[in-house]
Formats: sequence, C-alpha cells, structure tokens
Amino acid sequence: MPKSSKPKNIKTDRYERGLNTLQTINGQAGQRIMDLLKDISPDMARYVIEFPYGDIYSRPGLDIKTRELITIASLTTLGYASAQLKAHIHNALNAGCSKEEIIEVIMQMSVYAGFPAALNGLFAAKEVFSEKKTRR
Amino acid sequence: MPKSSKPKNIKTDRYERGLNTLQTINGQAGQRIMDLLKDISPDMARYVIEFPYGDIYSRPGLDIKTRELITIASLTTLGYASAQLKAHIHNALNAGCSKEEIIEVIMQMSVYAGFPAALNGLFAAKEVFSEKKTRR
Amino acid sequence: MPKSSKPKNIKTDRYERGLNTLQTINGQAGQRIMDLLKDISPDMARYVIEFPYGDIYSRPGLDIKTRELITIASLTTLGYASAQLKAHIHNALNAGCSKEEIIEVIMQMSVYAGFPAALNGLFAAKEVFSEKKTRR
Amino acid sequence: MPKSSKPKNIKTDRYERGLNTLQTINGQAGQRIMDLLKDISPDMARYVIEFPYGDIYSRPGLDIKTRELITIASLTTLGYASAQLKAHIHNALNAGCSKEEIIEVIMQMSVYAGFPAALNGLFAAKEVFSEKKTRR
Amino acid sequence: MPKSSKPKNIKTDRYERGLNTLQTINGQAGQRIMDLLKDISPDMARYVIEFPYGDIYSRPGLDIKTRELITIASLTTLGYASAQLKAHIHNALNAGCSKEEIIEVIMQMSVYAGFPAALNGLFAAKEVFSEKKTRR
Amino acid sequence: MPKSSKPKNIKTDRYERGLNTLQTINGQAGQRIMDLLKDISPDMARYVIEFPYGDIYSRPGLDIKTRELITIASLTTLGYASAQLKAHIHNALNAGCSKEEIIEVIMQMSVYAGFPAALNGLFAAKEVFSEKKTRR
Repeated sequence: MPKSSKPKNIKTDRYERGLNTLQTINGQAGQRIMDLLKDISPDMARYVIEFPYGDIYSRPGLDIKTRELITIASLTTLGYASAQLKAHIHNALNAGCSKEEIIEVIMQMSVYAGFPAALNGLFAAKEVFSEKKTRR
Repeated sequence: MPKSSKPKNIKTDRYERGLNTLQTINGQAGQRIMDLLKDISPDMARYVIEFPYGDIYSRPGLDIKTRELITIASLTTLGYASAQLKAHIHNALNAGCSKEEIIEVIMQMSVYAGFPAALNGLFAAKEVFSEKKTRR
Repeated sequence: MPKSSKPKNIKTDRYERGLNTLQTINGQAGQRIMDLLKDISPDMARYVIEFPYGDIYSRPGLDIKTRELITIASLTTLGYASAQLKAHIHNALNAGCSKEEIIEVIMQMSVYAGFPAALNGLFAAKEVFSEKKTRR
Repeated sequence: MPKSSKPKNIKTDRYERGLNTLQTINGQAGQRIMDLLKDISPDMARYVIEFPYGDIYSRPGLDIKTRELITIASLTTLGYASAQLKAHIHNALNAGCSKEEIIEVIMQMSVYAGFPAALNGLFAAKEVFSEKKTRR
Repeated sequence: MPKSSKPKNIKTDRYERGLNTLQTINGQAGQRIMDLLKDISPDMARYVIEFPYGDIYSRPGLDIKTRELITIASLTTLGYASAQLKAHIHNALNAGCSKEEIIEVIMQMSVYAGFPAALNGLFAAKEVFSEKKTRR
Repeated sequence: MPKSSKPKNIKTDRYERGLNTLQTINGQAGQRIMDLLKDISPDMARYVIEFPYGDIYSRPGLDIKTRELITIASLTTLGYASAQLKAHIHNALNAGCSKEEIIEVIMQMSVYAGFPAALNGLFAAKEVFSEKKTRR
C-alpha cells in the first residue's frame, strides 16, 4: 500500500555508501531495517540507510567508534528509545568500543539527563552484553 | 537564607578532585558556578563540583575529550539547555577537541533528536566560536 | 478510595458533548477509558471526556481527520506514549484518514523528533494496521 | 479573529471556581493570562482558568502549597518552560511556601531530570526572589 | 573550516527538488538557512534542503498545508524549538493555512504536551501574526 | 569487568547516610539497586545511594513525604521512566503518603506534561496499588 516514491532498482550513491558504512558496523542491520519496514514504509528504510548512514556516519571528521558513543549518549538522554539504544550498544561493540567505554558514556548521562535515563541505559547495556555472551 | 548543609571549610576529597578536574578543563568555570549559585544555593554549587566533576569526569575509562563530546551530544538532544551547551562547547575546545569534531557531533544529533535540536546546537557553536575569535 | 469530586449522575454539557464527539470517532473508546480508570481515578476519566473531547475536539476550526493527524504528530514526537499513539492511529482510520496519510505524518516526524521517534511510530502503526486486518 | 466558542458572558461554575482559586494564589494572574491571550485565543484563557484552576487546583486531597511544589517539580523537569516556572515560583511564595522549600524541590530535580534542568530552575528562582525583594 | 563533503557546484536532484518545494512555501527561507549556516556547517544547510524538503515535504500523500500543520504540532510538543516554530507558522500562512487553523493546532497540544507547551506556542503565533501585520 | 573506582570496603559518610535514608523509605531498595547493577556498574549503585539518597533526600528543608511526591511529579512528567515511577509510588506509600495524595499528584501532571503522561502515571499507580493488596 505505501508506494515507494522511487523505483526500487535505482539505487543512489548515498544508498550504496550508507549500506557499506552500515555493513562495516553491523552486517545484518541493513537487511533487518528493511525487513521491519517493508510492509509499512520501504521508503523509510531507504531514508534510514541514506541519511544517517549514507550522509552522516560516512562523513570524515569523527571515527565510527566516537559516532557510536555519541549516539549512545543521545539515545540514553531521550529515555524512550530502548530498542535503538540496544541496537547501537551492539554496534558500538562491533565498532571496537569496550564494554567499559559504553558503561562510562551511559553513567555520565546521569548528570545531564538524570538517573532514571542513565539506569535504564545501563539495564539496556546489561541485556545486550548478556545476549552476546549467550550467543557465543 | 539557604543554609549550607555542610560547613564550608570542610572540603571533601571529591570536592578537591572535582575542582582539579574542572580546573584542567576550564580555569574559571569552578568559580563561575559558585558565583552564580552563591545567593541561591551554595550547596548546589558544591554538588556540581562533587558529583559531575569529582565523581564522573574524574573516572578513568574515557578521556576528557570524549567526555566533552558525549556531553555535547546529550545537551544538544535535550534541546533546552543552551547555556550549558555553550559552556561545554567552550570546555570541549579547551580539552583539545577541534571545531570540526564538535560540529560533527552536533550534526549527527539531527538523526536522533531531530533537525531543530541540531540546528540550535550549531547556532550555539557558532556563538562560542565567534566569541573565542573576538577575545583573542 | 479516590472519591469523585462530583456526583456521577450530574453530567455536564461538556461531558455529553465530549462523549458524542468521542462516539463519532471511536464507539468503544469512552467506555474503555472509564473501565481503565474506574478503580484508580473516575474523575480523570471524566476529565478526559470533558476537556480533550468536550472542549477541544468539539471545536469548529479543524475537522476530526486533521485533529487526529496532529495528535499522531504530537504523540510520535513525545516518544513514550505508544499506547495513546496506537489508540489514535485507530481513531484516525475511523475518522477517514488513509493508512498512507498516517504513515506520511509519522515519517515526517523523523525531521523534527528524530528517527527513533519516527521508527517507533511506524512500528506502532504496523501493529494497529495488522490488528485491524486480523479482526475482519 | 479567533471566535470564542462560547458567549463571553456565560460563565461556568468551573470558571468561577477557577478564578476564585487562582485569586487566592495570585491576585493578578487571572487578568494577566486573559490579557496575554485576548488577541490570539480568548478561549484558551478560559480553558486555563477552567481546567487547571477550576478542575485540578480546586480539588480536595492536596493543599495549594503542595500543588505549587509539584508544579515546580514538573516545570523544572520539562526544562523549556521558564516563563511558567517563574510564575509558579511566585505563586508558591504567595501560597506560603518558603524560599528554602522551593530551592529544595528544584535541587532534587537534578536527580531525575539532570543538572542542566535543575540549574536553570535555580536561576529562575533567583530571578523571582530578587524581583520580589526589589518591588518591596 | 568545516569542509563541505561534496563540491558545491554538484547539485543533487534532491537538492533541486528540495529548493523548489521550499521556494513554493517560503521564497527566502532557503537562502536564509544557507546564510545562517554558511560559517558553521554549509553541509548541514544542504542536508536541510535535501532531507526535510527534497525527500519528505516533496512526497505525495499529504498536501503542504497538512505537512505544515503537523510540523506545528510537533514543534509545539517539543517545547524548546520556538525559532523553528515561528518559521513554520510563517510557512503555514504562506501555504494557505488560516490563522484559526494554526491556533486550533497549537491549542490542541495542551492535551498531549501540556499547557506550558501550548501557551508558548500561542505566544509564538501571536508574534508571527503581529510581525506580518506590521510588515504590510 | 567494570572495575569499581573505589575499594568496596571503604564506605563514605554519604554512603552510610544514603543507605540509612533509603532504609527508612524502603527496606529492600538499597540491596535491590545493588543487585540490579552489580554485574554492569557497581559504582553506579554506589552513586545512587550517595547522591540522591546521601546528599539530596537526607537534606533538611523538605520531609520525605514531600520529597516522594515531587519525585512522582517529575517521573510522571518524564513519561518514559515507568520502572522508577512504580518504585517511588511504592516508596511514597511507605513514607506515609495516602493513595489519594499520589493520585492527585499524577492527575495534576495532565496540566503540565499532558494527558498521556498523566494517564500512564495513573496506570503505574494502579499496578503498584494492586500488587500491594495482593501481597498482604
């Protein structure tokens, strides 16, 4: 029902660049976003690849590790975005961030966003860390 | 009128550590916070030195540069904290972050907190950068 | 235990008007709100009928379709109100909004509230749309 | 241009009750709200008197002092509502809250909403306290 | 100092489409965004044209009037984005929304985002409406 | 893996004071926080005891009942902190607040944070009240 505003076989440079960037961070994430959104808004899946990953994460000026840490800071601050926070904690580990670094970022958010936001962030990290352990 | 819950001349370890950490980031900030709060809540000035700076920023696990960048991410995400955002953009420059890195952090917030938050963050950065230029 | 501040059988004009307005949007919603709140705060159930529906939604100046779309915009922006968002996506469909219009509203929120808010909004829409399909 | 949805001379019980409640807290506030909104939305001025003051603040179950303190907690938490926060700090003083109580409420918000929200709240209190001193 | 990640003379389709869409809403807005951001982040100016206007506002499925009203709903809900809210109230008038419709959208936000957000939204509308009157 | 920045057997005054304060509000809460955080960040558990409870809740100037009510106001306003809200509704009952007072605080938040925040707060209260009834 939601018609894509663009023929699916015309892929933009930004799309390819976004998919490549996302691939280096998280091999399955691109496909997972497309699967989750394919019934409701395939265009939104395309925008997620194109703007955050094709435009922003592909920029020079900050390495991927730092980009993932500031994303964790932002998502912890928002408070309501636990699904996205868990995905980016996963991505941060893939990008080479240590568990300690991720925990430090979330703890610091107690200062700016309050303790509930920071505690919920730590509980999200706990879940991701234990899922990763189980899967091995 | 607001009585300090602690005699002023008994300084805690955390207080000294916080003041030292803050000193390395921003030489005047400690005194400025105390001046701003001395009529309304000197205890709050003490807590600002003790908890954010004495406890959190003094921890190992993340360098000060990264701590300032994640703070900028959080304050940009909050949207309403422009005074604190400007202070931390200033601190980030002092801590050795480049203007480019600060701009990249704020731009990335458009993805997670939306364009208004990111644009207001960039305007805050513009102000701080031009103040610094003028003062030299 | 929480005593109603008003005898239950004295119904205000606003209450009747609110119930009528709500009836045209969602036949069961009025009773559902009263059931959910009857043990904890029957007065709050009355206020929900009176203020949002009796005062605001009953005003001329905007049709119900537009009122439901701006409510979806607001609830998507809040980020934490997924129960209310799902209820209003349901109401919007009842009021004659198309699925496409609802999806467009939520997608546009990526610009102002960020991608996590918009993605969670789309997942809420997906749930409501598939519930409706199943029930038929 | 915005036409009132109700003839101005038909005053509801809730309106009278709201105006009385507001009168006991702040003698000029009712008129001030009506003046501020008369060109843009006189109906909204009426709703402010009717719902917050006529319905909520007029309820038994909490005294006005406590109602003003929880409002200060909420407005400090929101972060962006400094005009309303200053008005309610003023109202809290009128209702018999001490400066110390108001400061304690705002300081405590550092735990739940973060330090920027609490600091901006304290600066708002500082402004209100010094205005009151000057006016005497 | 911030180097554009793309040569300025290579304009994308999205950029042209965004500029055209923005042109139909607000003749000066495109240039104004570029001027405001040219010293700090010309790339961000480009993204504002490309993603919100080139991708989102250019989509079929919702007319520009509705897009401006849901943006006003979202910005009122955010609470801190008064500069962007004023710009979009201006754009909504240009797009053919009546003052009454804009006021109704903002008033309705009292239900979902609270009275302070709605009142600040109305004060923003008041400013924009009186600027427009003065300029004629 | 996350190493405590301080030997566990060196307890600060603030820690003891915080634990005592928390003990008077909720006998199991201190241990529960430490259990929840022991694998991910034992330091954060210590900070929760030290800053909110050792520094803030232990201050004179507001009784514990009022401190719990303003916390409920703040957590209801945040919207996303339902776990913490339920814990503090529980604490408020322990501190001697009546169910009616707690409900009044949450209802009043509809004015400042909107109806979705207030309704979700009431549903949280409903859960806590019925858990308490069941346990007896």
